[in-house]
Amino acid sequence: MPGVEPEPSEEVALDDLRDAWPLLSKEDRAEGFRMLPRGAAEEFLLGSTSRDQAELILGLPEAERRQWMRLIPPDDIADLLQEEQLEKRDELMGLLDAPTKKEVTALLAYAEDEAGGLMNPRYVRLRPEMSMDEAISYLRKQARQHLETVYYLYVLGDGQRLLGVVSLRELLKAQPDTRVRDAMRTDVVSVTEDLDQEAVSRLFALHDLVAIPVLDAEGRMKGIVTVDDIVDVVHEEATEDIQKFGGMAALEAPYLTVPFSDMIKKRAGWLLVLFLGEMLTATAMAHYEHQIASAVILTLFIPLIISSGGNTGSQASTLVVRAMALDEVLLRDWWRVMRRELASGLVLGGILGSLGFLRIVLWQWVVPAYGPHYLLVAITVFMSLLGVVLFGTIVGSLLPFLFKRIGFDPASASAPFVATLVDVTGLIIYFSTASWVLRGALL
Amino acid sequence: MPGVEPEPSEEVALDDLRDAWPLLSKEDRAEGFRMLPRGAAEEFLLGSTSRDQAELILGLPEAERRQWMRLIPPDDIADLLQEEQLEKRDELMGLLDAPTKKEVTALLAYAEDEAGGLMNPRYVRLRPEMSMDEAISYLRKQARQHLETVYYLYVLGDGQRLLGVVSLRELLKAQPDTRVRDAMRTDVVSVTEDLDQEAVSRLFALHDLVAIPVLDAEGRMKGIVTVDDIVDVVHEEATEDIQKFGGMAALEAPYLTVPFSDMIKKRAGWLLVLFLGEMLTATAMAHYEHQIASAVILTLFIPLIISSGGNTGSQASTLVVRAMALDEVLLRDWWRVMRRELASGLVLGGILGSLGFLRIVLWQWVVPAYGPHYLLVAITVFMSLLGVVLFGTIVGSLLPFLFKRIGFDPASASAPFVATLVDVTGLIIYFSTASWVLRGALL
Repeated sequence: MPGVEPEPSEEVALDDLRDAWPLLSKEDRAEGFRMLPRGAAEEFLLGSTSRDQAELILGLPEAERRQWMRLIPPDDIADLLQEEQLEKRDELMGLLDAPTKKEVTALLAYAEDEAGGLMNPRYVRLRPEMSMDEAISYLRKQARQHLETVYYLYVLGDGQRLLGVVSLRELLKAQPDTRVRDAMRTDVVSVTEDLDQEAVSRLFALHDLVAIPVLDAEGRMKGIVTVDDIVDVVHEEATEDIQKFGGMAALEAPYLTVPFSDMIKKRAGWLLVLFLGEMLTATAMAHYEHQIASAVILTLFIPLIISSGGNTGSQASTLVVRAMALDEVLLRDWWRVMRRELASGLVLGGILGSLGFLRIVLWQWVVPAYGPHYLLVAITVFMSLLGVVLFGTIVGSLLPFLFKRIGFDPASASAPFVATLVDVTGLIIYFSTASWVLRGALL
Repeated sequence: MPGVEPEPSEEVALDDLRDAWPLLSKEDRAEGFRMLPRGAAEEFLLGSTSRDQAELILGLPEAERRQWMRLIPPDDIADLLQEEQLEKRDELMGLLDAPTKKEVTALLAYAEDEAGGLMNPRYVRLRPEMSMDEAISYLRKQARQHLETVYYLYVLGDGQRLLGVVSLRELLKAQPDTRVRDAMRTDVVSVTEDLDQEAVSRLFALHDLVAIPVLDAEGRMKGIVTVDDIVDVVHEEATEDIQKFGGMAALEAPYLTVPFSDMIKKRAGWLLVLFLGEMLTATAMAHYEHQIASAVILTLFIPLIISSGGNTGSQASTLVVRAMALDEVLLRDWWRVMRRELASGLVLGGILGSLGFLRIVLWQWVVPAYGPHYLLVAITVFMSLLGVVLFGTIVGSLLPFLFKRIGFDPASASAPFVATLVDVTGLIIYFSTASWVLRGALL
């Protein structure tokens, strides 16, 4: 009896191919794929990334390409075509039947990272005057085609206008003679075609949705976005934010597959900006050259002091950038955040400052390394740490608001960026404090 | 006719309450909630966070609590109870009926961040010998209860053993007299109760799933995890990684709601570790005090050089940590990553080193600030930048592997942590290079 027992050979073959995939040549990949049983091959193709799907299909003999291409839903075909050069794109487009080609062409007009670029134009449509029983048999008919989801049924009126939605669960539990229009929910959460995918993903998280309808500006239904695509979006957006936060441009491809030259470009850009900014430290230090010459001891604590400002600033900006990405903090909250960070900066600066003070005083007892004015030096370090940490938290927390306000991505207020800003100011704070505290003693 | 037209008042009331929520007192929240129409109130409650759900229900008059509590699925009740102190927990447990209480108690035994802690014990069960038509009417009966999802139907044999799965779509399109056992898929992706939620979320992303069955060690079905919970998990795990990456412990609550003292504790811990590590820079500098005194010019470039190492190190560790979290890079890939980062370090270090060299030489032409040996200083800076950047990328990329190998979270190889490590070594590289290049000239 087919299907009663698991078919271990099929599963093993599938897992083997998955494991070996990154190490195989193009030819071996296509061959391995063709050796899979039909069911496993379908699962493998549909579970692959767009890049791999395109490579796989182009690696097959021409006669076989068409049947595999037709398995893939139109929104995934659009993604796949976007991975390819123009010439291959036409070749792949040629494999589609006329209605799918039309759907895919419409989808290609959207940016990849907006609702229109994520949506599938195939969904279950009902008419408001159907009975629930008619709806079920209509659904059974539509289910034989390739539909992305049957879990919500969309009730459309004239001109494709969305009137309401019936979930499959509601359909199943309703009395058979209820009219669709009496059972449908009319307070439907929907999105416009051009809504950013990050905003779409927040709606999914907020409302615990499985699918969301996409409407155009006139309220006509264009397709649905399903939650399985959203899981990918959330991963992708988090990766982008994390990479920007590490002080570089987002790679937009897995680390091991992105070409070396692309990676260098994406890293070198921000590195140069940071380097040019950091050059100001040399200018600032040159300004204090006279002080340094007469109190070399001051230089010993430069890295300690400026890095403490960088570290607390990095914490503050991390917290604010992430809270903004999750809509936990809005622009109008800047003053509440500010107050929290001022308080944090004072407490954390006080702790680190005291530690720095103790370090110098205790060290001096063990090996008298800091000369007769060690207590003044310790006071300078305490005050500088307090000031630098406070400044770090303020810059780290305000910068994301400022960036957002002027239309930049708040995630660009990265740990290295904040650290660079704080380094320059930290030096000025340190040497100003020193010349005030040590005047007449060391300076 | 009810339900035909959208009910704007209901939607407006719901959105108003959502907007005003963070600013309302506990009493106003309960009152606002009670003023919502039934449908909107249900949607609001089910869409709220566990914390808000608990607060809402406890804020209602005792007579009303029970009905609302029963709306919430058992897995969400378990989350809600975990937010509360023991005493309130018992009070809330008292509102449940006996079977739900049993389900919830079983769920509370799981850790919040493993598959068991995410799963819902209510799902649709079928017997293998049913026909598809029988399955549909059985489903229509079960759908009247509170089921989390009806999109997959699980075929169970003796002792709750999972034999296969039928999707609702397959059920709808199959011939009515097909037996369930002949239509079901047997190669089911499942997870064990104790699988970490991050691993569960990767399975969802890999296979584009809507729900995944949870089995115990003996293969008995315990419940299902649905994709709507996974969207939250992905957000949550990314937030944790980002916060660790910013150099602190994960907050585990929204920034504006976490108590101030908790936040300070979570930030101060890592700050102290970093501060103690950074103290070594003062020790290292003390070691070179003699050199500094005779060539004060060297101090000018200290922040520039060490921060460049920190920035490239932060880029490298960001890339590796994120790639590890997404399973794009495994432990065994360390050498491939290493080679890429060695090459990146050489290129990026070469670029920054050349810029540093040019900066000194050009500046010297404009304002002769660096003395007769400026060319030797420029060479020192070039070589140090190359060395420090190379060292930064190596440390930044290897540290996450090392952490993972010894069982730490790779995300702890944060930007500030890498920067601190590189600062100390950066100073040693700089001053060693200086004493070699400048010997006999400045030193």
